[in-house]
Amino acid sequence: METCTIKSKDREAFIDVTSRIQEIITASGMQTGTCVLHVPHTTAAITVNEGADPSVASDILAYLAERVPHRGPYRHGEGNSDAHIKSTLVGVSQVLPVERGKLVLGTWQSIFFCEFDGPRSRRLHVQLVSHGEALGK
Amino acid sequence: METCTIKSKDREAFIDVTSRIQEIITASGMQTGTCVLHVPHTTAAITVNEGADPSVASDILAYLAERVPHRGPYRHGEGNSDAHIKSTLVGVSQVLPVERGKLVLGTWQSIFFCEFDGPRSRRLHVQLVSHGEALGK
Amino acid sequence: METCTIKSKDREAFIDVTSRIQEIITASGMQTGTCVLHVPHTTAAITVNEGADPSVASDILAYLAERVPHRGPYRHGEGNSDAHIKSTLVGVSQVLPVERGKLVLGTWQSIFFCEFDGPRSRRLHVQLVSHGEALGK
Repeated sequence: METCTIKSKDREAFIDVTSRIQEIITASGMQTGTCVLHVPHTTAAITVNEGADPSVASDILAYLAERVPHRGPYRHGEGNSDAHIKSTLVGVSQVLPVERGKLVLGTWQSIFFCEFDGPRSRRLHVQLVSHGEALGK
Repeated sequence: METCTIKSKDREAFIDVTSRIQEIITASGMQTGTCVLHVPHTTAAITVNEGADPSVASDILAYLAERVPHRGPYRHGEGNSDAHIKSTLVGVSQVLPVERGKLVLGTWQSIFFCEFDGPRSRRLHVQLVSHGEALGK
Repeated sequence: METCTIKSKDREAFIDVTSRIQEIITASGMQTGTCVLHVPHTTAAITVNEGADPSVASDILAYLAERVPHRGPYRHGEGNSDAHIKSTLVGVSQVLPVERGKLVLGTWQSIFFCEFDGPRSRRLHVQLVSHGEALGK
């Protein structure tokens, strides 16, 4: 398992990590397998969405900010309950196929680390499961 | 990895793909393993929910339509920001166990391809990870 | 694949299942691998979030209860459409890495079975995929 460090500059941000994950796959030499991504934080998440137009990520962030208010009638005293809620709504893991040494992603898909309570230094776990010949297709 | 083609007839739809995925598993001969489903699109998703009563799918779609409005104060210029937001909320991948050659699903569970910006022809990737004897339980 | 039984006492609850899943991993002897969790129900879910302060789970439940009302203009006649919607928003599967025989979780992360239509007796499937030497990293 590899671990990436992700640095955010703002409280909320979508950070494109596609090329970093692909570099880990390329370095491993794995041709066919599964890539498990796990965010070991409770106020961040990971998603796959459009990377070509940055307005898509900003629309998603703006939607979440409006619908999950930063200040609300929350009981958790740290002032970041909104970030915990967003983490559960978006999710902290992603599983993606790898074929011929490349992440299988659609034309417009990028992988985004979602920061909801930054700025901070965060980690992203990347676990590669190579499908050996014994594993079949 | 296999790829299914999914055709939608409306802008928004839940399309039950359970039997098509089971057919791929059956054809592979895999008995014990994991089934990774990945939607290579940014305005669609995949979920598992009740398939017996179609009202459940229509209630989920109606909820999402009400809470993620089609027209809103979005920056992305293609008029489908709602579909991108729904894709991130629902998610583009699912991972399911396979035992004795069958998808492990609850009595009421079906797998739905979620179209949020159709009608279109879409793809769904199905990656089977067979657990050989060397892989243990 | 192992199956845990989860008993809920209320209609809605987050039940910490981390130690039960770790016990299954420990009993299996698996050192390096992937843990696939699957909820075979359509009105429950599974998430990973903060376990240290129980206010976090109650804030997430309160948020979902407010934003996905129990009584609404739903078509499904069983009075639990809210629970089906929450199940799709949170998701019924999680995939986590295992290293040195331990679940890879962040300092504050716990795994929660999410009951949205209890009280009931529920099941949680735990599938372990051991990465044998042939599988590489």
